[in-house]
Amino acid sequence: MWFPHYRLNKSMTYFARYLPILDWGRRYDRSAFSNDMIAAVIVTIMLIPQSLAYALLAGLPPEAGIYASIAPIVLYAIFGTSKALAVGPVAVVSLLTASAIGQVAETGTAGYAVAALTLAGLSGAFLVLLGVLRLGFLANFLSHPVIAGFITASGILIATSQLKHILGISAHGHTLPEMLGSIGAHLDQINLVTVVIGLSATGFLFWVRGSLKPLLKRLGMGPLMTDLLAKAGPVAAVASTTMAVWIFDLHGVGVKIVGDVPQSLPPFTIPGLSPDLIKTLLVPAILISVIGFVESISVAQTLAAKKRQRIDPDQELIGLGAANLGAAFTGGFPVTGGFSRSVVNFDAGSETPAAGIFTAIGLTVAALALTPLVYYLPNATLAATIIVAVLSLVDFSILRKTWGYARADFIAVAATIALTLIMGVEVGVASGVGISILLHLYKTSRPHVAEVGLVSGTQHFRNVKRHAVETNPNILTLRVDESLYFVNARFLEDLVHSRVTAGCDIKDVVLMFSAVNEVDFSALESLEAINLRLIDMGVGLHLSEVKGPVMDRLKKSHLIGDINGKVFLSQYDAWVSLTR
Amino acid sequence: MWFPHYRLNKSMTYFARYLPILDWGRRYDRSAFSNDMIAAVIVTIMLIPQSLAYALLAGLPPEAGIYASIAPIVLYAIFGTSKALAVGPVAVVSLLTASAIGQVAETGTAGYAVAALTLAGLSGAFLVLLGVLRLGFLANFLSHPVIAGFITASGILIATSQLKHILGISAHGHTLPEMLGSIGAHLDQINLVTVVIGLSATGFLFWVRGSLKPLLKRLGMGPLMTDLLAKAGPVAAVASTTMAVWIFDLHGVGVKIVGDVPQSLPPFTIPGLSPDLIKTLLVPAILISVIGFVESISVAQTLAAKKRQRIDPDQELIGLGAANLGAAFTGGFPVTGGFSRSVVNFDAGSETPAAGIFTAIGLTVAALALTPLVYYLPNATLAATIIVAVLSLVDFSILRKTWGYARADFIAVAATIALTLIMGVEVGVASGVGISILLHLYKTSRPHVAEVGLVSGTQHFRNVKRHAVETNPNILTLRVDESLYFVNARFLEDLVHSRVTAGCDIKDVVLMFSAVNEVDFSALESLEAINLRLIDMGVGLHLSEVKGPVMDRLKKSHLIGDINGKVFLSQYDAWVSLTR
Repeated sequence: MWFPHYRLNKSMTYFARYLPILDWGRRYDRSAFSNDMIAAVIVTIMLIPQSLAYALLAGLPPEAGIYASIAPIVLYAIFGTSKALAVGPVAVVSLLTASAIGQVAETGTAGYAVAALTLAGLSGAFLVLLGVLRLGFLANFLSHPVIAGFITASGILIATSQLKHILGISAHGHTLPEMLGSIGAHLDQINLVTVVIGLSATGFLFWVRGSLKPLLKRLGMGPLMTDLLAKAGPVAAVASTTMAVWIFDLHGVGVKIVGDVPQSLPPFTIPGLSPDLIKTLLVPAILISVIGFVESISVAQTLAAKKRQRIDPDQELIGLGAANLGAAFTGGFPVTGGFSRSVVNFDAGSETPAAGIFTAIGLTVAALALTPLVYYLPNATLAATIIVAVLSLVDFSILRKTWGYARADFIAVAATIALTLIMGVEVGVASGVGISILLHLYKTSRPHVAEVGLVSGTQHFRNVKRHAVETNPNILTLRVDESLYFVNARFLEDLVHSRVTAGCDIKDVVLMFSAVNEVDFSALESLEAINLRLIDMGVGLHLSEVKGPVMDRLKKSHLIGDINGKVFLSQYDAWVSLTR
Repeated sequence: MWFPHYRLNKSMTYFARYLPILDWGRRYDRSAFSNDMIAAVIVTIMLIPQSLAYALLAGLPPEAGIYASIAPIVLYAIFGTSKALAVGPVAVVSLLTASAIGQVAETGTAGYAVAALTLAGLSGAFLVLLGVLRLGFLANFLSHPVIAGFITASGILIATSQLKHILGISAHGHTLPEMLGSIGAHLDQINLVTVVIGLSATGFLFWVRGSLKPLLKRLGMGPLMTDLLAKAGPVAAVASTTMAVWIFDLHGVGVKIVGDVPQSLPPFTIPGLSPDLIKTLLVPAILISVIGFVESISVAQTLAAKKRQRIDPDQELIGLGAANLGAAFTGGFPVTGGFSRSVVNFDAGSETPAAGIFTAIGLTVAALALTPLVYYLPNATLAATIIVAVLSLVDFSILRKTWGYARADFIAVAATIALTLIMGVEVGVASGVGISILLHLYKTSRPHVAEVGLVSGTQHFRNVKRHAVETNPNILTLRVDESLYFVNARFLEDLVHSRVTAGCDIKDVVLMFSAVNEVDFSALESLEAINLRLIDMGVGLHLSEVKGPVMDRLKKSHLIGDINGKVFLSQYDAWVSLTR
């Protein structure tokens, strides 16, 4: 069959854009294979307790955590662009999942599990849609301080939500006051043996995280071994507390355990598609998608920068969307690229997304063969691993940093933290985004406008209030320090009016547009109004330093033809021409 | 009693700020009084049919329209700052009222009237709150094109809503498809006599508006008389059709008439305060407040500009809020400053808000004595006055103008018009605002960044792609044409990275900040990341033309200390220093 070469090539490129695996897969070799295998073994061991724990956090049966780590990881390996990202259940997304599904079903019911599938499916569909429409930039609407505040508050919420497992009581709630109130009301149920297990595990894990590495180093152990032992901490905690429960039959004295976990491949599941369920879960799904995407892309870009690799945000949306759709059809719940698992994967030396595929194989083996081993694993131990992991996310320094730098950023962070803790994760993050945008619009609605004069001996103009500059009483030169658009259009109109009526000798007004990056239709109308008013008063209106894109646009309007003055390339030209 | 003069003076100023009447009231004289009286008589005559008509549009009994014109006009005269604004029921706000109350009660029921009072009360309270908090600038979030599109679409909706009165049928609906569908389904009810009255009145009023003035002028009549006769058009239509119905007993053949209107002072009423009602009406009340405020302030500022008077937007909020609270307690419904009535007031020569008080007195007399005269007034005539008034608001030219100037503005207008017609007024205007803001944020998320070079023989730098300029292969100068904030922080990071890695000879990067009006915390972190990356690559990072306010802020951070280069006052300084 005749097939023109350029066409083949073009269609390959087309597919490779949506299937990055075609690119790295062709160049896969033995060295990459062995590095990926080693990384996969390490990550698999770490992922087993983590997956069980996050399922617990999301309010789902433990096996859901393992299932949610298998298909998603493979699908991300096919569609994603990061070489190091490990996709699966993560703390913040699991918390959001619990909060969203808690509105539609009771924990432990069949409806709850189905709602989790639906949430993953909606989230996956939404992410793929954003990716196909190339809307990855929308994630930028979450500012760094808002994300930092949200993560800190989420960490506190997550840690608090696990206290009930450490205490061995039942409690509920999705906000800090609800949780604390509910814990207080159930304090009489405290199981002391559970408390002992929970506190020992928590203490042990904090010790491993903080003091073990320095100790091993002092004992002369090599860095690789040190690292490996430190990472095995959660596994050791799981193994030792499981053994303790089994040997001393602590389940008999009321210690809650993981219990039966089915030995099975990930099942084929179908998300609930009732319009009511979809309507209720749509907004939470969008929120989970955006937050998951922001977390994931931050991790992916941080790791890619270290190896000078590129991440394509729009393709990442497709990769994460595919992973969530995978979770929806294989008994999982919403997933994203996690920080801790990705860092482990990276540190363990994974070279390609194949490491993810090998991890999935390892987890499949675990799901089929190893689940009986966690029968006696106490929930308190899983809670301890979550608490230790999330408390490392809690960092209030962002409050101090933003307070020192810019009050608007501080307000956004403080509101995000407070509202997340008091009103819950959805309200918290939505308010953070809304407040950031409103504060930005507010700032641009009252822009800084400086009267400028010539810096002697140069052709440069600066603010008369800050620099010693030459001015001329007949010329008012205003440098407008903001794009002109509907939010501040009327502001400029009022300002020019009040400045011109205040100074009686003014014969020419020059608007210096060096900082005006846009003039929208509302602002155009304001400029026309200013021009008409100045014509009435016999005052000239001139523009200077209008940028190319702004000038292109103004030329389409009547303003440039009607203006009662000139448009000067530079402010210096205007000055020379008007003072002559 | 001893009373220090300065204190008296200070407290007078304080009161005068919230009570502008104290200011103009002290200077009131005989000349102003006679001018105000003449204006009041003209406005009163015009307001009677208009008030009845807008009550009909809002779905309320006719007297509500008169009541809504009495107390509000007096309260605005006390608290408002415009000398010419006439406050009362207006077309768009009446339509919004019908749409909002239609959700909670059936037209004609007691619940409907109470809901109208509650809506006016909530709107009044909200406006006063905004005024006290000095948040008048929020109205700027409605861009000119969005307002123009909304007014046009509302005009079409209002005219369509009146078709049922012209046809003599019953129909309902709050969107164009609903209304047209409902009219189509009730076409069998058409009353031919009503149609004749309705079409004659409409035709007559269009003729008065379009052709009467030129005709009278050709007949040699003076401009004042011409104007007066043209304005008497609606009164003539009301009088003649009322007479026709009375003489020929057309009510007997099915022509719907205004009927009994109580002869009474405005009653004292109490708005409904049930939490459910308030919850349902809160969002519509906010919307009505904002739209009413925008309409009112536009009219007030247009008229004030003609006489070089000042309008205080925050005090206007208080004036309109007081007017609406007044409507809520005197049997009215939401009101605002109307365009047509204010222009009549202005043209008739009103000098102070006292003209409004005299108008209120005139309307009170009408409410007490003249209501029996409108017993036989056909609804079709009122509908005709509304249709002719609102069709003058319909103006699609904004679509053509924005299309030619800026696509983003066009999209906002087109979406506002389409969504208002198809989904209703609330969705339409909310979408218009939302879309404007999102499009603005989208534009700033991918800012224009120009590589600039020196314009020979000057100290001025322009885009290398648009001008013949001097450049140096070792220096990359980027002029960032946008404030740097969270929405575009990562964009700059990626851009600098890709530009520096693309050109291998680059030794220095200069970011020219002449158009950067803000650097928020997210952008600061990006600049720090850019700096660290350039240090790694052995490339210098310099800033030039940083504005005062931006520099003040940057000095609070580590960036200026850590930067791998210098901060230059002007780009020319940077060029001279780096090329030496």
